[in-house]
Amino acid sequence: MTSLETTLAAIRPADERAVAAARDLQARLTKPAGSLGALEELSVRLAGLAGVCPPPLPTPATVAVFAGDHGVHAQGVSPWPQEVTAQMVANFVAGGAVVNAFARQNGADVMVIDVGVAIPLHGGATLLDANVRRGTRDMTVEPALTREEALAAVEIGVQVAGTLVAQGAKALLTGDMGIANTTPAAALIAVFTGTSAGAATGRGTGIDDETLARKIAIVDAALERHRPDPADPLGALASVGGLEHAALTGFILGAAANRVPVIIDGVIAASAAVVAAAFAPDAVAAMVAGHRSAEPGAGVALAHLGLEPLLDLGMRLGEGSGAVLALPIVAAAVRVMHEVATFDAAGVSEK
Amino acid sequence: MTSLETTLAAIRPADERAVAAARDLQARLTKPAGSLGALEELSVRLAGLAGVCPPPLPTPATVAVFAGDHGVHAQGVSPWPQEVTAQMVANFVAGGAVVNAFARQNGADVMVIDVGVAIPLHGGATLLDANVRRGTRDMTVEPALTREEALAAVEIGVQVAGTLVAQGAKALLTGDMGIANTTPAAALIAVFTGTSAGAATGRGTGIDDETLARKIAIVDAALERHRPDPADPLGALASVGGLEHAALTGFILGAAANRVPVIIDGVIAASAAVVAAAFAPDAVAAMVAGHRSAEPGAGVALAHLGLEPLLDLGMRLGEGSGAVLALPIVAAAVRVMHEVATFDAAGVSEK
Repeated sequence: MTSLETTLAAIRPADERAVAAARDLQARLTKPAGSLGALEELSVRLAGLAGVCPPPLPTPATVAVFAGDHGVHAQGVSPWPQEVTAQMVANFVAGGAVVNAFARQNGADVMVIDVGVAIPLHGGATLLDANVRRGTRDMTVEPALTREEALAAVEIGVQVAGTLVAQGAKALLTGDMGIANTTPAAALIAVFTGTSAGAATGRGTGIDDETLARKIAIVDAALERHRPDPADPLGALASVGGLEHAALTGFILGAAANRVPVIIDGVIAASAAVVAAAFAPDAVAAMVAGHRSAEPGAGVALAHLGLEPLLDLGMRLGEGSGAVLALPIVAAAVRVMHEVATFDAAGVSEK
Repeated sequence: MTSLETTLAAIRPADERAVAAARDLQARLTKPAGSLGALEELSVRLAGLAGVCPPPLPTPATVAVFAGDHGVHAQGVSPWPQEVTAQMVANFVAGGAVVNAFARQNGADVMVIDVGVAIPLHGGATLLDANVRRGTRDMTVEPALTREEALAAVEIGVQVAGTLVAQGAKALLTGDMGIANTTPAAALIAVFTGTSAGAATGRGTGIDDETLARKIAIVDAALERHRPDPADPLGALASVGGLEHAALTGFILGAAANRVPVIIDGVIAASAAVVAAAFAPDAVAAMVAGHRSAEPGAGVALAHLGLEPLLDLGMRLGEGSGAVLALPIVAAAVRVMHEVATFDAAGVSEK
């Protein structure tokens, strides 16, 4: 079996005993029942994932930033030059990007993985060279990737997740970098949620109306050309995906197989999440939606997965920024179960 | 002058030069313009408050939990016995409540101030005895407080804020405890926002439809009896407020006078915030809305103040829990301005 097949076979539903124990514990803690809102539901889900109540605190945590370039950039879907992907990877390695600042704030590690950057990169202690090819092909004229390339990228994501968990990570966070990567994300979300290109496509880093209209037409044309089959997730990743999208799909599946929560960032991660759910529906149990990206496709994807995001701050940066920002909320939800006194223990009267 | 008068005289609008410098800096950082959404706006506001760009990181931070009891509890507005206020204060001092767990998670200190608990409390290192009276009077039959009592509680809040800032706090967080304290909060919100008792009153810790209808009628009756004048904020605090509401009003004003951000928690803090804004409209510049409480009055109050909350998780616990949960987001917004590289410095191309 490939490592993907092994991974898919390892993904199981939530543990219902741990879920029940978590609901029972939440009812005994010194607070009105339900008063922590979404945090209570999250803590119950994480107990079900871990198979134990309380589940482990989500630390240490690592945000894995998968970087790649995109042949479809040639179609003018982004105002940014392609070399910004490599420049931002250097910025991540130097610790100067937003995701680095957020990670320092919230106690997460940052790891950068080159799965498909067009320009050869100079290494660094936090840069993993796993380049599958130097950018995808232009999906408007041919499949972005071969199935073999897509599988290689998925398996890199699986391996990164497995390595991080083996090193002690208790939470995995998705990150991405790739100029033009919201275009394949929109295509994947359209394929797997059954929505239109128009509903799945957004302004990315901030394009004007004319560019948005072109971007939607390009997504439509790629879907028309390749007619990706949602029952064949690897084929869809190959025809209209990207290398970081494929790697993130594997990363999410790897987290689920290891029963470790994976905090989903924005639209790129959300597109990978719908692909991961197509590979293994039970993988959704491991997913925590960090935030609602301003990019409309992200909302479509999260609704498809039945996930409610923790934050809604109008962010649309990517990098993993929204996932890292949500980490303390996930930690707080779990910490309540570890540290808050019960009514009995604290001698607090019940109503 | 009273310390309240001195405090009000010290509250000034945002520094427009620091605001402009912050907008300029945000445009030069390595991220698409506007891609951090609400965090960018927050960082600009905090620069305007501090009068310097970048503004200081919001650490160290302290959540001040003001505790009091309420004569209106006798009207059956809460299913919880009044002694739970004192029991929960003991839980805070012992570190066993949700606010303690969240504070440990996010690096905040917890301070508990008895401004009006009905039962004499045993001290502790983190409990400040500043009891003004052992619970308010029942506002449905007489004013809850005299003007002198209300002023004493406001000035305690001012002093706590000043002491914490003098000790180095760079952010103040509002906390509260008081069985039945959502009833005076609803009355204050109705007075200062001009909304109805029905729109300002919610289920608090989780009351049934019948109790909610009674609670609304009680708020209505108290407003009818006292006809509080929003142009006389101290008079309104006295007639339909609470001791923790008054102290929080002073605490918020003290933060504003010291130009330190104050993170507003839920409906109790929001009711104090509208009173603080009535005392000094410029105090709003110091306020950061931590979360949208499930309690409807909180949303009414925040809309009145023009504040958009950072979190919306369906929480309705109080204690300061929503403020502490928002602290890392405030810190992340500021940290971006301190640590993220500019396009120039990082050698990243612009679009």
